[in-house]
Amino acid sequence: MDSRTTWQDEPMELVTIEDIRAAATRIAGVAVRTPLLPCLWGDADRPLWIKPENLQPTGAFKIRGAHNAVSQLAGRPVVAHSSGNHAQALAYAARAAGVPATIVMPDSAPTVKIERTRALGAEVVLVPIAERETRAAELVEKLGAAFVPPFDHRDIIAGQGTVGLEIAEDLPDAAVVLVPISGGGLASGVATAIKALSPSTQIIGVEPELAADTEEGLRTGTQAHWPLTDRTRTIADGLRMEPSELTFAHLSAHLDGVVTVTEDEIRAAVRTIAYEARLVAEPSGAVTVAAYLNRATKLPKGPTVCIVSGGSVDPTMFATLIT
Amino acid sequence: MDSRTTWQDEPMELVTIEDIRAAATRIAGVAVRTPLLPCLWGDADRPLWIKPENLQPTGAFKIRGAHNAVSQLAGRPVVAHSSGNHAQALAYAARAAGVPATIVMPDSAPTVKIERTRALGAEVVLVPIAERETRAAELVEKLGAAFVPPFDHRDIIAGQGTVGLEIAEDLPDAAVVLVPISGGGLASGVATAIKALSPSTQIIGVEPELAADTEEGLRTGTQAHWPLTDRTRTIADGLRMEPSELTFAHLSAHLDGVVTVTEDEIRAAVRTIAYEARLVAEPSGAVTVAAYLNRATKLPKGPTVCIVSGGSVDPTMFATLIT
Repeated sequence: MDSRTTWQDEPMELVTIEDIRAAATRIAGVAVRTPLLPCLWGDADRPLWIKPENLQPTGAFKIRGAHNAVSQLAGRPVVAHSSGNHAQALAYAARAAGVPATIVMPDSAPTVKIERTRALGAEVVLVPIAERETRAAELVEKLGAAFVPPFDHRDIIAGQGTVGLEIAEDLPDAAVVLVPISGGGLASGVATAIKALSPSTQIIGVEPELAADTEEGLRTGTQAHWPLTDRTRTIADGLRMEPSELTFAHLSAHLDGVVTVTEDEIRAAVRTIAYEARLVAEPSGAVTVAAYLNRATKLPKGPTVCIVSGGSVDPTMFATLIT
Repeated sequence: MDSRTTWQDEPMELVTIEDIRAAATRIAGVAVRTPLLPCLWGDADRPLWIKPENLQPTGAFKIRGAHNAVSQLAGRPVVAHSSGNHAQALAYAARAAGVPATIVMPDSAPTVKIERTRALGAEVVLVPIAERETRAAELVEKLGAAFVPPFDHRDIIAGQGTVGLEIAEDLPDAAVVLVPISGGGLASGVATAIKALSPSTQIIGVEPELAADTEEGLRTGTQAHWPLTDRTRTIADGLRMEPSELTFAHLSAHLDGVVTVTEDEIRAAVRTIAYEARLVAEPSGAVTVAAYLNRATKLPKGPTVCIVSGGSVDPTMFATLIT
């Protein structure tokens, strides 16, 4: 954990494998324990497994962290702001934990995402997008609620880390695990688990070239901040966030590297995953497979795991990508 | 098992739960132990889970039975004839068991299916379609091999039954399990396991209306034989076989009923499974979801499991179905 001092002077408490084990106990029966899927289409030097987190009930890994967080709040109501995926994950996790959830969503959010969040029992408050943070803060105050962020929290990171715990249990001799990076909650948790349980396994982050702020930050030793207008260029709409100080600290401490992939490589990976692995992946969830298929020279040889993080994709876009 | 006497006089030894438990031990680590996926889009009276057998390495449940059969042959080579799915399943299972496999395929089989079977280490013998049975018999003789049929064998049925064993373990209070019927190997094994472990669970077979010979046979008490030209009308190309005496005996003994679905309902189910469950299912694999969505009045209320049996679908057809 010495590498933390390369980017900030104050020590920061990182998530531990014990935190992740505790999270695994909490989320059992709420999140699906996804299997590792052996893929016949891997190359001989790098046998391939997919960890299909798109099969979680709300379509992505995010219910793991959300439920780990809400289940420790002793019944306090929860509040979040989100335009979609975190909203559904938190609503699902809160319902499973028996706590009320209020989600502030921009009034421009797609109707289907609003409806799905409501169907999971959450109260949805629609506001102009510029007001969502202040409105969430007001609701926290008024309801005596806990604010649950999408990634910048130790309990969220620990919950997402259960993905890594399961990989280490199922394939202890993995040579490399590929994980998408956006805000860094998933990558931080997975890297923590893998490095604790299987130190010889390389853990490699994957970003779109068009949103590669973390690749730059880890390469230079100082977190890079790309303008949001740059990061929103990629088709991988789930990978447009940047890490917080907390997640960047975990990534600095534990990641072995970051590779980047092009937009065309991401599109092709969605198609490959559909026809070879029989899974519907969103572009953000497919970047690891894009890296596997196109960046072999940057990856160690040996058993390889690609985390396919989610499958929330617009039907029209998906049909276009696979044809 | 008294119902067997309604269709033949000689007793026939049916597969038992002990056979299925032994199969589960043999296939561990070869077949994926698929999870039950909770679906948020089920109706309130019938909470829905999917058993995603399309996630098996060769795209369908068939490796379970194939590996259970080949692993009991003490290293004897195996021979089969198949135009595709059974070929790949047997090749995969034989490679895992370390035995040579020779597959007789029609010279009209799609190149991709031939290549994939060869890639799994099997020897492929291409013959005119009319000669495949005689050629397979010759090879059995010449190689001292065992012939492995796609469904008409107790070891195959016991292997497919592990799907039901896993469902009973994961959701012991299921009210109903829906299973596709073609040759009946999967339905026979699953029904045997469910009735042994969870007698109150209803096990319902599903057929296309256009290939509903088993529905007719069980309703009348005598196996029905539909002309192959009738059975090939359905888009569900994996459901065009008819049961053997052996599988029909299991279905007579254990199934609680059969429902049928239309071609339009099958197409719509493929789309629903893609966008709601994030899985690529072939039409044959989607019939259970078609029944769930359209035949609720014929099904008991309560927790419901749909077995999605496979995902080997032509990309062009799949893209058409989901748009």
